[in-house]
Formats: sequence, C-alpha cells, structure tokens
Amino acid sequence: MFNKIIENVKNNTPLVHCITNYVTVNDCANVLLASGASPIMADDIREVEEMVTISGGLYINIGTLNERTIKSMLLAGEKANSLNKIVVLDPVGAGATKLRTEVSYKLLEKVEFSVIRGNISEIKTLALGQGNTKGVDADVSDIVTEENIDSVVDFAKKFAKKTNSIIAITGAIDIVADEKTAYIIKNGDSMMSKVTGTGCMLTAIVTAFATANKENVLKATAIAVTIMGLSGELAKKRLKENEGNATYRNYIIDEICNMTAEKLEKGAKYAIK
Amino acid sequence: MFNKIIENVKNNTPLVHCITNYVTVNDCANVLLASGASPIMADDIREVEEMVTISGGLYINIGTLNERTIKSMLLAGEKANSLNKIVVLDPVGAGATKLRTEVSYKLLEKVEFSVIRGNISEIKTLALGQGNTKGVDADVSDIVTEENIDSVVDFAKKFAKKTNSIIAITGAIDIVADEKTAYIIKNGDSMMSKVTGTGCMLTAIVTAFATANKENVLKATAIAVTIMGLSGELAKKRLKENEGNATYRNYIIDEICNMTAEKLEKGAKYAIK
Amino acid sequence: MFNKIIENVKNNTPLVHCITNYVTVNDCANVLLASGASPIMADDIREVEEMVTISGGLYINIGTLNERTIKSMLLAGEKANSLNKIVVLDPVGAGATKLRTEVSYKLLEKVEFSVIRGNISEIKTLALGQGNTKGVDADVSDIVTEENIDSVVDFAKKFAKKTNSIIAITGAIDIVADEKTAYIIKNGDSMMSKVTGTGCMLTAIVTAFATANKENVLKATAIAVTIMGLSGELAKKRLKENEGNATYRNYIIDEICNMTAEKLEKGAKYAIK
Repeated sequence: MFNKIIENVKNNTPLVHCITNYVTVNDCANVLLASGASPIMADDIREVEEMVTISGGLYINIGTLNERTIKSMLLAGEKANSLNKIVVLDPVGAGATKLRTEVSYKLLEKVEFSVIRGNISEIKTLALGQGNTKGVDADVSDIVTEENIDSVVDFAKKFAKKTNSIIAITGAIDIVADEKTAYIIKNGDSMMSKVTGTGCMLTAIVTAFATANKENVLKATAIAVTIMGLSGELAKKRLKENEGNATYRNYIIDEICNMTAEKLEKGAKYAIK
Repeated sequence: MFNKIIENVKNNTPLVHCITNYVTVNDCANVLLASGASPIMADDIREVEEMVTISGGLYINIGTLNERTIKSMLLAGEKANSLNKIVVLDPVGAGATKLRTEVSYKLLEKVEFSVIRGNISEIKTLALGQGNTKGVDADVSDIVTEENIDSVVDFAKKFAKKTNSIIAITGAIDIVADEKTAYIIKNGDSMMSKVTGTGCMLTAIVTAFATANKENVLKATAIAVTIMGLSGELAKKRLKENEGNATYRNYIIDEICNMTAEKLEKGAKYAIK
Repeated sequence: MFNKIIENVKNNTPLVHCITNYVTVNDCANVLLASGASPIMADDIREVEEMVTISGGLYINIGTLNERTIKSMLLAGEKANSLNKIVVLDPVGAGATKLRTEVSYKLLEKVEFSVIRGNISEIKTLALGQGNTKGVDADVSDIVTEENIDSVVDFAKKFAKKTNSIIAITGAIDIVADEKTAYIIKNGDSMMSKVTGTGCMLTAIVTAFATANKENVLKATAIAVTIMGLSGELAKKRLKENEGNATYRNYIIDEICNMTAEKLEKGAKYAIK
C-alpha cells in the first residue's frame, strides 16, 4: 500500500504553498522538507494567486488568522480551485471563537477542499455549519473511542459526501474518510499532545502527500496520518529519561525524515471500514 | 514550598492566551506545554475578547508589536481585567524605542497587570512612566549586583505597590516582589543569554503558574522564575562539548518538562527579604 | 585570514536589527547569538528608524513580505544609509512572484546595500532589474557548476560594480564578490537544503560579520559564508543514523556557536579570483 504513495512525494518534490499560523510555521516547513516536499510561505494578497499557480498544492491553516490573511486565504483557495490544485484546510480552533467558526464556514462556502483535517470538535463545528455546509448530523461525542467509533465513521463519511472532501479527524484514534470508505488509524503516542503544532505539521504533510498523489487523495491522506502517528511512536521509543517535549519534537521530525515504506508496512495499525 | 504550586499547574492545565511576538512564539507554546499548561495564540481584535473569556490567563508580550496587535493587546487586557483573570506583561524593549515605551505606558494605564516581568532597564523605563505610573523612584543601577540588591528590592516593592502588580526583575540575580515581600533568586546560567527568548518563555510560564495559583501569585511567580533558572542550570550540565545554543535551548525546555518539586527543593537558591 | 574578522564579531557583539520573515526568524535570532551578535526584531514603521539608529546593522529579508512590512523595510533601509550603517538584503523568492520582484527592485532603487545574498535565480532576477539596476548581463545558468563558474564570477563582479554592493551567490558552490575580487567557496553539504532557512540564517550572520567589520565587508562576508558551509559539513559528520533534518538544524547552529578561527583555517575550502 505505502510504497508508491511515498515514492511519489520523494520523486516529485511537490511545492506546497502554506498560508499558516506564525506559531508552528517553522515546524511545518521542516516537516514538509522531511517528507520530501518543498515549502513556500506567502500571505500577501498581491502574490498568493501567483504563488498558488506555481505551487502543486495549497495549505490553509487558520491558527493565527487576521483580517489581512483571511482575505488571502479566500483568494488563494479560489485560485487553487480554478486551477484544479490540491487545497487542504486546517480549521484550528473552529468553535472556540465566532471569528474562527465564521471564517471556516466562509472558506467552506467559497472553496472546495481536497482534504479537511481537524480534531473532532473542529470538524463537528464545521459540520454544524451554515448555508451550504449546514445540515450534517454532528451529534457525535467530542472524544473518539472504541465504543463510538462507528458513529464517528458514519458522521465523517456523511460530511465527506456533503463537502466532497476527504475528512480527517485526528486524536487518539484517527479517522480518514471519503463518502464510502474510512481508514481507522491507531498509531500515535499521547505525548504528541505535549508538542505544539503536531496537528499543523500533520496537515502540512497531508497537503504534500495529496499533491503528489492527486489520483488517490484518500489513501495519500491516510498514509500521511499514519506516518505522523508512527513517527510519534518511534520518536517516543528513542526518547531518553531526561529528555522532554523539545527533544521529542525534533525526534518526531527526524522520524518523518527517515520514514520508509518498510517501516510503515511494519508499524502501521489501521483498519478499513 | 513548591509542591502545591506546581501540582496546581499540572492538575488544572491552565489555558494561557498569548498575544506575543513571532520570534519566540513557538518556544513559548512549547514551554507552556512543558510546564503543564495549554497555549492558545490569537491576536485578531475580533476574537481576543472571546479568547480571553475561555482562557484562564492572558500573556501580553510586546516583542514585535504593531499597530494592529497593540489594539488587540489593550482590548484583551481590559477584558481580562473585567473578568478578573490573570494578565501578565512582558514589556520587551521598553526604553529602546518611543513606540515600545509609549505602548507600555498605555498598557499600564489601561490594564492592571497581575505580574510584570522584564529586565531591570525595561522595568525602570516602566517605573519612570507617565500619568498614573509616573513618580516611582527608578534611580537604581542598570545591573543588579550583590552590592545594589537592597536598593533594587526597595525599588521593586515600591513599583509593585504603585501598580498593584507582582514585579519580576530578572537577570543574573532575579527579584520577585510585591509591595511587602521580595524573593531574591540566584538560579540560572550565563549561557541562557545565548538562547533567544528565555525571557519570553519565562513570562509565559509565569502566566501559567499565576493562572493556576490565583490566590498566591507572588509565590507562583517566584517559583516559575526559579524553575526557569534551575532548568537553565541543569540543561547546562547536560550540555556536551560540541553542543551549542540550539541544543541548549532544547535541553532547557526538556528540563522544564521534567521539573519536579523534589528537584526544585534541592536546587532552588533563594532568599526572602 | 579568519582570526581578526571573527574576533571582531565576538568582541563587539554587534546589534543586528532584523526585518525578516516569520518562518525562520527564530533560527535567525539564534544563529546571530551563536555567532556572537545580538538580534533585535522590529517591523512597525513607527519604530524602525529608531531601531536602526541604535543598531549596528540592518538585515532585510523579504521571505514573508506584506504591505505593512514593505514600507518598514524601505524606511529602515533609507535610514540605515543616511547613518552609514551596514544594510544587507536577502531577496527571498525574487522572480517567483511579481510582488517579490518589484519590491526587490524598489529596495535596490531606494537603498544602497552593503551586501546582497541570494541564490543564483534570485540574484539574476535582481540584475535583470529595471531603472538604475537594469542592464547587467544576467545571461548565466541557473546552477553554478565548475564549468560555468567563470561566467558567474564575471556576472557577480559586474553586478557588484553596478550596485556598489558585495554580491553573495550561494548554492553548491558559493561566490562572494565585489567588482574586482571574488571568493569561490566550496564548503557545505547537500543536506542543508533539507533544513528550512539556512539561506536566511546565513544572511543574518553575514549582517553580523559585515557590521563588526565595516572596513572589510568583502572578506567578512566570505568568512560568514564559509562558516555556514563548514558548520553544515561538521554538523553532518555529527549526525547519527536515526537523526534527520530537525536534529541537523540544531547541530548546524551548534557548530556556528562553537566555530573558531582554527577550525575555519583547517576546514575552509576557498579560492580567490
């Protein structure tokens, strides 16, 4: 399963245009390089259309959105759609403030995303939406467990159908779904929540993988999610007693840098539903 | 002294809203996670009030202030005050430019800070102030030494009284004071000045500790300052010959991540005046 | 050759004012500290002139330029010129978008730079320029090789004469030239391209070295370029099998932090033409 998808990233070096937050942007750039892609950050409205044009894919992350960059996100997203390029959304904090929620709705209204990646609360907020995105049943729990997994998978598939996007809901258990098929992925380590930006980094990698595998975005997204989780596991094993979350961050990116199809084949824990 | 204060951070996972500079923001997020808190960065004026409302404490750092974010800082600070939340100020570079000095005065005028943390020059600049903050005698040296420590302690207490804030003046010797009591802390390592943002990171941790210990902000601040200094010492011991300031940065955050009341009990060097 | 130039940085601790991108700004701050300089970041138009005045040198990097910061770059650059301070330009992405190209031309038109550092495509874009910067023959290849090195050296010298700047073109082979003399530097490691911001970091160090060696900017720039390359080589040797680009980044900065004239004397690979 993994070989071709990974090779496509390493061989094509997809250029990923990121409009993302200033908190984790450096880590996003370095994980893109680690996974074989090439990052370019640009958020001025006068250049985002050109940047989208020369890029393979676009990554929009609303982590530190502001009036200026929201406009750039919308314009870049619409341009990416018009050129049939990959566009991926990370709706950081949707549901936490009205601004983030409304900007997420606006983005969903104006841009068709190839992939949307968030935690269960963020994705639920999006699904509850308004206008075109309204109406999906988001009556699922805020934590994904073995017990409620079926209802979350069902929810993810419905929202995937509604948005025509791959939906990636990540947490202790990850779900990556289109309207028909869902990957349930159980890689990862709880300590990853002690490192800022593991979600942002994951969405960056998802963009790279989707861009290099446009004909198979579902599988590419599932593999990117698996790589992030497995890298977290392997990095954790490497962590010595006096090391903490800063070293752990470096080890996670190192593992992404050294990931191979063989390691994935051996370490991936997933099921398809 | 340390046990309860530290436990309160780890057990309550205070959400700290940061309006801070883009230079050291990633490190601030990771030290907050390391110390047991949870970071959220947001600086758009349309969302800061809501973010303050859902957060436990607010951290304002003027390191790369601009017209847009200054407005957000003021609004967020006022909101935090109205909700009786912890608000901590790091007046980076106050005194270096008119803009930074004036914004610091404005912040002091409009917002009552729980804690103000800076180096001696920055705190002196604030104390010399204007309007309501004017009038405190800031005729102390620009370096805190064994010889002038008493006059700096006296200055810190007076400024604490004037502002109704805990004043933390950090450098080779650290002073944390309210109007009556001062902690004099001698942990730390001179190499910490080779790592960008140790001051910003410290103020982030101070916000977390104050937020989780609202009934004892003086002690919480003193402990946060001690933890930063001791982490710098322990990280230095771990540093091998060919390692430099990048690895040192990681080790400092790692030590914060692995800090315990026992280590603090053993390593803290402080006196109360 | 190296001793005095390096000592001048360590002994003078030049204050380098950076108006740079938010992607690699933290690494730029840490490499400045590593090399013995002191960083200050400030981009609000109301404070950049004052910041330039108290700084030794100014570093302008257009990596994430926007309407607000472009104005600050221009004002800061003009101020630095009026005070006869070192000003260094990193035209990140010039040629990739119209905005970046035009802003680069505008900067060249309004500001006289002490040093301009970029890859061959960026420098060619600048040389093709308009107005005062127009007319330099940029008909050189987009990759510098042993075969075309003479024509690139010739191009660099001409552009140096035209702009009255030191021109640093970096890649697998680096060229640092004024109108008469060129250093050809062959230090470095191909893995450096897997770390985001090695170019930005290099230009930051160049600014520090030029600022501390105003009477010998050509040599100071050549040495800064050599230090970056050699640090990349030494860091690579230190890299263990399971380590990747995150650890490599830290090792590079560590090596800069521990660089000595002796190591440089031994490891520098350069020729003068």
